[in-house]
Amino acid sequence: MFRAAQVFTRSCLTITKVKAAPKKIYTVRFEPSGLKTEVPEGTSLLEAARKVGVYVSSICGGDGYCGKCKVTVDEGQYQSKPTTLLTPEEVRENVVLACQTRILSDINVTVPKTHALETDQILTEADTVRFSRLTGEALEDGFAFAPLVRKIFLQMNRPTVKDYTADHERLNLAVRQNLEITTPVLQMGYRILQELPYMLQRTDYKVTATVACRGGAAEIVQLEAGDTSGTNYAAAVDLGTTTVVIHLVNLTTGGTIDTEAAYNSQISFGEDYIRRIIYAEENDAFDEMQNRILHDVNSLIVTLAERHHVNLQDITAVVCAGNTAMMHFLLNIDPRRIRREPYVATAAFIPPVRAAEVGIQINKRGLLYCLPSVAAYVGSDIVAGILVTRLNTRDNLSLFVDIGTNGEVALGNRHWMMCASSSAGPAFEGSGVKHGMRAGTGAIEKLQILPDGSCDYQTIGDTPAAGICGSGLLDTISELLINGIIDRTGRFAQKDGARLSQGEEGSQYTLVPAHDSHEAIVITQPDINNLIRSKAGVFAAIKLLMDATQKRPEDLDAIFLAGGFGNYLNVEKAVTIGMLPDVPPEKIHFVGNTSIAGAKTVLLSRQAQIAAEQIASGMTYTDLMSHPKYMEEFVKAKFLPHTNLSLFPSHRLATG
Amino acid sequence: MFRAAQVFTRSCLTITKVKAAPKKIYTVRFEPSGLKTEVPEGTSLLEAARKVGVYVSSICGGDGYCGKCKVTVDEGQYQSKPTTLLTPEEVRENVVLACQTRILSDINVTVPKTHALETDQILTEADTVRFSRLTGEALEDGFAFAPLVRKIFLQMNRPTVKDYTADHERLNLAVRQNLEITTPVLQMGYRILQELPYMLQRTDYKVTATVACRGGAAEIVQLEAGDTSGTNYAAAVDLGTTTVVIHLVNLTTGGTIDTEAAYNSQISFGEDYIRRIIYAEENDAFDEMQNRILHDVNSLIVTLAERHHVNLQDITAVVCAGNTAMMHFLLNIDPRRIRREPYVATAAFIPPVRAAEVGIQINKRGLLYCLPSVAAYVGSDIVAGILVTRLNTRDNLSLFVDIGTNGEVALGNRHWMMCASSSAGPAFEGSGVKHGMRAGTGAIEKLQILPDGSCDYQTIGDTPAAGICGSGLLDTISELLINGIIDRTGRFAQKDGARLSQGEEGSQYTLVPAHDSHEAIVITQPDINNLIRSKAGVFAAIKLLMDATQKRPEDLDAIFLAGGFGNYLNVEKAVTIGMLPDVPPEKIHFVGNTSIAGAKTVLLSRQAQIAAEQIASGMTYTDLMSHPKYMEEFVKAKFLPHTNLSLFPSHRLATG
Repeated sequence: MFRAAQVFTRSCLTITKVKAAPKKIYTVRFEPSGLKTEVPEGTSLLEAARKVGVYVSSICGGDGYCGKCKVTVDEGQYQSKPTTLLTPEEVRENVVLACQTRILSDINVTVPKTHALETDQILTEADTVRFSRLTGEALEDGFAFAPLVRKIFLQMNRPTVKDYTADHERLNLAVRQNLEITTPVLQMGYRILQELPYMLQRTDYKVTATVACRGGAAEIVQLEAGDTSGTNYAAAVDLGTTTVVIHLVNLTTGGTIDTEAAYNSQISFGEDYIRRIIYAEENDAFDEMQNRILHDVNSLIVTLAERHHVNLQDITAVVCAGNTAMMHFLLNIDPRRIRREPYVATAAFIPPVRAAEVGIQINKRGLLYCLPSVAAYVGSDIVAGILVTRLNTRDNLSLFVDIGTNGEVALGNRHWMMCASSSAGPAFEGSGVKHGMRAGTGAIEKLQILPDGSCDYQTIGDTPAAGICGSGLLDTISELLINGIIDRTGRFAQKDGARLSQGEEGSQYTLVPAHDSHEAIVITQPDINNLIRSKAGVFAAIKLLMDATQKRPEDLDAIFLAGGFGNYLNVEKAVTIGMLPDVPPEKIHFVGNTSIAGAKTVLLSRQAQIAAEQIASGMTYTDLMSHPKYMEEFVKAKFLPHTNLSLFPSHRLATG
Repeated sequence: MFRAAQVFTRSCLTITKVKAAPKKIYTVRFEPSGLKTEVPEGTSLLEAARKVGVYVSSICGGDGYCGKCKVTVDEGQYQSKPTTLLTPEEVRENVVLACQTRILSDINVTVPKTHALETDQILTEADTVRFSRLTGEALEDGFAFAPLVRKIFLQMNRPTVKDYTADHERLNLAVRQNLEITTPVLQMGYRILQELPYMLQRTDYKVTATVACRGGAAEIVQLEAGDTSGTNYAAAVDLGTTTVVIHLVNLTTGGTIDTEAAYNSQISFGEDYIRRIIYAEENDAFDEMQNRILHDVNSLIVTLAERHHVNLQDITAVVCAGNTAMMHFLLNIDPRRIRREPYVATAAFIPPVRAAEVGIQINKRGLLYCLPSVAAYVGSDIVAGILVTRLNTRDNLSLFVDIGTNGEVALGNRHWMMCASSSAGPAFEGSGVKHGMRAGTGAIEKLQILPDGSCDYQTIGDTPAAGICGSGLLDTISELLINGIIDRTGRFAQKDGARLSQGEEGSQYTLVPAHDSHEAIVITQPDINNLIRSKAGVFAAIKLLMDATQKRPEDLDAIFLAGGFGNYLNVEKAVTIGMLPDVPPEKIHFVGNTSIAGAKTVLLSRQAQIAAEQIASGMTYTDLMSHPKYMEEFVKAKFLPHTNLSLFPSHRLATG
């Protein structure tokens, strides 16, 4: 059964079977951007959107079951597979699932604003107020300032009969004296060696050498005339599944010049990386996957460089942190076995390579260094988090929790560290939740249910509520529980009430009633179930690590919570719903984006680079998928806060 | 004044001035090779010969004053500058100096056999009988077998859920365990990383890794399926000014498979490297200079590889030793300042580069490692010599003397080392001597003057005498002195005698009378003067180093004499003529080609590589050109054996 709309008859819906016609080329126009593209007959609207770069949300990666890729056909002929994910009203208004709709003529499509990408609110160095102190500490009590790539101005003497040292050794000697390097001969490109004598003579032996650390050895990657040591820049990159965050860093001063962020444009191939791997595998699209992420990284770098009049040739290094799959996509190394038993990465420690070789458009001999990962499901973003929270150097026990598409957990101190990843799902990033959204403009980031059942809330940007981000969802579940609207299993306590109603997906609670052009923002039973599954996954991971090491919540000196929740995360709520162990709120530190902070620390300190490598190789990974008790703990954690209330002694207080 | 010959009138010599005509293209044919080339009108015969690859001897590099480039014009029109270097008989027979003769028509030229290159007798590992013991010692008491590039067969386990180490780390770990490398991450090319998972899965994790040492770091340069560890080869190269010697080495066993040698085809641009630098500078021919030497190296490698069915891709390293200028030519790095005050090289320590990048056609990621030099005039061939004679590790004082185009001298023990280079000139290599020749077929390598004034001699290959090589020249001077035919200044004691006659260059002594088609082989007064200048330069260098360190001949425990003299060098004669200090003959060891031996030692032992670098950086170079006493010592050493006979107490005995 197929659904088709006739040209110029927007409201005419006749269900017919359209016969296959010879493939023609049609123009697709997307509103409100006005972007156009030409595609062969039969192309899906989602593919057309991807082709032209129009962002259409798609969690399932185009499989037709997430229902996120709704668009409206304004004009034109198409063919849609039937779906239960559209209401009769939507069908009447020519709303279609972009992934399930094939183009049969020139066509005009409107993409609703809910898909729109907003980068202004993406966390760059979130909650830096609380976090900076930690980072500051870290840098103070350890890592010396020694950037991965340095420019050193060398004022050498011209050779004389008495001082006959050859040009190359003269340069090496000067660099070694400056950097206290003991290697006898630094690596140097053949072409640089060939140009060396002319460069030295032209500049009267006054040159700036760009020296990079590469795999334990130092390399002279560039020589410039005169003193250019003040113009040495680098990019620290957090390569998230959802967002790409870049800091442009001045390597001379160590200061951050500016930051930029964008959505990872691989999103249209699936919102989590497992979907993307499947998509790329089925469509032989690993090159495309790499091109997407390269495009994001390059665009952000160019934007920052242009804004600050930085020459791309003066950007000499890129340091990346992110999950293991994203690193594989960036380098286009095979990620397929990440999703298949025995869940193995191609590389956890990626050897430093030339950024240009990978396709990052900085100085052609500049370096790309990726922080090391621990395992297929514990990436270098977690290593970065450990690095900046200094979990690995603390005498006392700490817990690090990063909530993203997955929930990664690390537990330990300076003697040992364990980590695990729960397939939490991206609920707290707003995916899989009817009105969930990322921490962008209009997202509810704080919420309280008042005695009358109405909600007091705050949105990012103080604009009308468009949806709910992570911190808002944490508040919502917590408030629903505290106010007895849901029970400890997450089920609505009643069938009806002032704000309780029956929606298509069962019971739902209205957080923000419909007003003007805005539809009501509700939280549905499936939403709650998804969120509880997420938190249960995280908690089960924590519990198993703590049980394995015979630790109890009172043994924890600190919990570091990282992730893209939104800036006003109330850490107590994470305990209330049973996501984090029951420790006093002052022990919980929301540390924001530790991935970018770690990338930057490594960029600025060779010591930190070594520390990151030690963290990654010294951490014990526990595979939960094969853990005999994981399912049991997961099921137990699906109560609010937990089946076993003795684990949450403060629960009574909170609900009291 | 110009000399021209009319077409078809070989014997017609009319001296006329030929008017410049529009440039035409003429065919030049060289006999006996039959090689032909086309050149524009006015091209010199020497240029034409170079173009087509016909070897025409030329010491002066084409300046018209060495007289070595004589050829005979059989047919055709030409224009020659007048010269005193041709006899009237030669002029009558259309013999011309190739460098001074311009082509004015199609022309046929015969290149005399005396120019012919013979490679069969070039020293490869000369006098290995005496030398091998030394090298053997050296390898026994120190250098562990650890080739610069190794192939290691790795049998890794497939990953499992319990053993989830990523492919890249699995490989790194396996390599590190095998090689006892402590670096956490080995360098590896991006493309190899991309191919890694497919390679490992295809081979069930059984691969051979090719690991190279590069600038203090290790690098995986190649991965091959299965066990290929038995097919790992390398070339050790002695890049001499005159000859290029190559040993094909099995890196798995350390054994030498075979050796090949050829003349350095840069010779046609000048027989010493200073001439070649001047030529290249004046003609912008540094690329051509590199191409020549690359051609020699590549041809020899291909010859050896084909002969032994070795795939060029399985040759993974090339290690070179040679003088500083030759290294510059090979890498095409600027050698011009080597010949100008303050006599500075571009690089003495050349960083390891990919051989393919330079133009050596082995495995595309194979390494080229050049042994380090000490200074512009003390090259890595001398470092190689020190390495294999172990001068640098001996408690007692030793002297190392290498006689080639220049004479380099090193003095020292395990506490200190000094070195110097004398511009000895290539007389003992046969250049600048009327009947001098290299140690090839027909060269007189041993000579004794009998009481009747006739000579008893031995030639290489037992063929009729064609000339005299280094060891023969040493014998000749020594015998002339002992028999009172020349006095201590080197002048002939009489004007006439049985074998003494007046030639064009003054007095000359007939060593081998003319017979059949062979002209007489004589030694002339200028020859003797050149040879005495050579030996005086070497001795002055030795004397200055010994004086500077207050050492006397009796302090010397050993003298190591290296060079391309010929295989039957009588070391006592070197004392008789005053080239070496007066020590008992048993202390003098002729060690042959230590340059190739050192290159091979470094190729086979990472320890030796480090030792070579320590030798090069630990040696004190004395510049004789600016030394206030060099000229004085040189003049004193121009007597046979020396002005000061007290330096040669055994002299009376020898002449007695």
